Amino acid sequence: MKSSGAAEPISVVGHTAIDHICRVSNFPERHTSVPTIDHQIFFGGGAANIAAGIATLGEPCTLVSAVGSDFPGSAYERRMEEIGIVRQFFYVDDRPTATAFMFNDEGGDQITFFDWGASRVFETAEAPALDFVHMATADPSFNVRVAEKSDFASFDPGQDISKYSKEQFETILDNITVLFANRHEAAQMAGTLGISVHDLAARVEIAVFTMDAEGCMLCIRGERQTVPAVRVKAADPTGAGDAFRAGFLTAYRRGYAPLRCCTIGTVTASFAVEEMGCQTNLPTWQRMAQRHEQHFGRLG
Amino acid sequence: MKSSGAAEPISVVGHTAIDHICRVSNFPERHTSVPTIDHQIFFGGGAANIAAGIATLGEPCTLVSAVGSDFPGSAYERRMEEIGIVRQFFYVDDRPTATAFMFNDEGGDQITFFDWGASRVFETAEAPALDFVHMATADPSFNVRVAEKSDFASFDPGQDISKYSKEQFETILDNITVLFANRHEAAQMAGTLGISVHDLAARVEIAVFTMDAEGCMLCIRGERQTVPAVRVKAADPTGAGDAFRAGFLTAYRRGYAPLRCCTIGTVTASFAVEEMGCQTNLPTWQRMAQRHEQHFGRLG
Repeated sequence: MKSSGAAEPISVVGHTAIDHICRVSNFPERHTSVPTIDHQIFFGGGAANIAAGIATLGEPCTLVSAVGSDFPGSAYERRMEEIGIVRQFFYVDDRPTATAFMFNDEGGDQITFFDWGASRVFETAEAPALDFVHMATADPSFNVRVAEKSDFASFDPGQDISKYSKEQFETILDNITVLFANRHEAAQMAGTLGISVHDLAARVEIAVFTMDAEGCMLCIRGERQTVPAVRVKAADPTGAGDAFRAGFLTAYRRGYAPLRCCTIGTVTASFAVEEMGCQTNLPTWQRMAQRHEQHFGRLG
Repeated sequence: MKSSGAAEPISVVGHTAIDHICRVSNFPERHTSVPTIDHQIFFGGGAANIAAGIATLGEPCTLVSAVGSDFPGSAYERRMEEIGIVRQFFYVDDRPTATAFMFNDEGGDQITFFDWGASRVFETAEAPALDFVHMATADPSFNVRVAEKSDFASFDPGQDISKYSKEQFETILDNITVLFANRHEAAQMAGTLGISVHDLAARVEIAVFTMDAEGCMLCIRGERQTVPAVRVKAADPTGAGDAFRAGFLTAYRRGYAPLRCCTIGTVTASFAVEEMGCQTNLPTWQRMAQRHEQHFGRLG
């Protein structure tokens, strides 16, 4: 494994955000108001979630992100400090930190409104050259520039998938080793590229497609293997994908084979969904390893 | 006019809230995310908006409301202090101040999610006995208890209209002098009561039905008069109704006849809609009087 034992931290590029997660009985009709049954505020943002997952698993991690004037001195900053995330931040004075407003109805549907806030700075920011980097959902042009300068890179298109052009996806695929996507993202990405999902998987060395309750599919140069999900009492599916990627990347960085990286990612995600919020219940390596042993065997 | 020259302030009962107002190109489909084009945070809450309007017009005003642990020391508290709103508050430690998340699309449609937060305390709180009170949208049972104890009372059902039972509306109508409603609210209220809008108007001494660009209709013991709207360049219709009520009630308290109260309410509302946010552009009595002279004649 080319990166095993390297001293450089894993860098994660993308959003730091504040998540407002609200439960409602149903979404409002136009020109009406619905009361929230529950409203909680959580630490979020795809890149920050992954960085928190990696840091909690015990791997050095640098978060390359953007925050607003509300961030310095905040509880979120203190939390990053506590878990040891190195912050390589763009500080934006005249915008708030990116904010997600997520509404879940009783039928299990979710809608999200996302204020990019400080993350808009990515569009024009200079991309750093990074040794081992994961590009989480954020500005396509910034991610393209990061991909071109990186040594090892992985990528997930996430919520910003529709902002990417065919050309941007092509450049990123040419520069990454690992592609992560859920089944909707894989289909949409393949659609933008005008190819099949099968051909999309074959475009990269390693493709990992997560499939909710059905687990995940690992494609190595197009050859498929599946890993079942770990069944837990799920309180909130938000953040499962980010925790999966944190587990996968930490394991990959530590030299585990891709299939083992998938089982470690699956177990890491199983913790994240047990509590509301994306960063509320991330496991240490030891907690992850104990559950891993129950479901997929002892980690060597 | 019975209340002219009285020393007691106007009391306003109901929500103090934080308004997140976001612009989006379109509302998200289920399981998708849309970026906000604009996200601004404003001081809001129906009762607090009305109190701010009254205080800015220069009439003594007490706001009977509920706030959360985030309120003391906040910019919103400082602003209330500055404009001279007397605060008769329930302080709730374990909830945030009520929060509205409003989303406007490019077609001019709006949806709102409302977190009651600290306002939930109204349900069980003891109602004060008040001399001259407006009951803005909030908990029906609290408003019923306030109405029963009040001397002069006015009421608007607002966004919480569907929480009221027929019996609660009956009790409130039996105890108020002025009813305010927009046309949707009037229709819904009449529906709950099983009567026509015409009969609803006849149930109270004074009914004022606001009709957006068509102005407002004043019904005194069922007899109708209309007041045209003042045309301005509207940036945000939110808060127009609250500003109207602030103008009407201030004028009523100062002894103006109901039709004059309507023109003063109309002019006050015309300022509120010129800027984003409900409390951003409330007029002093002098500014209101100048515009009033242009449209409806000099105020005596």
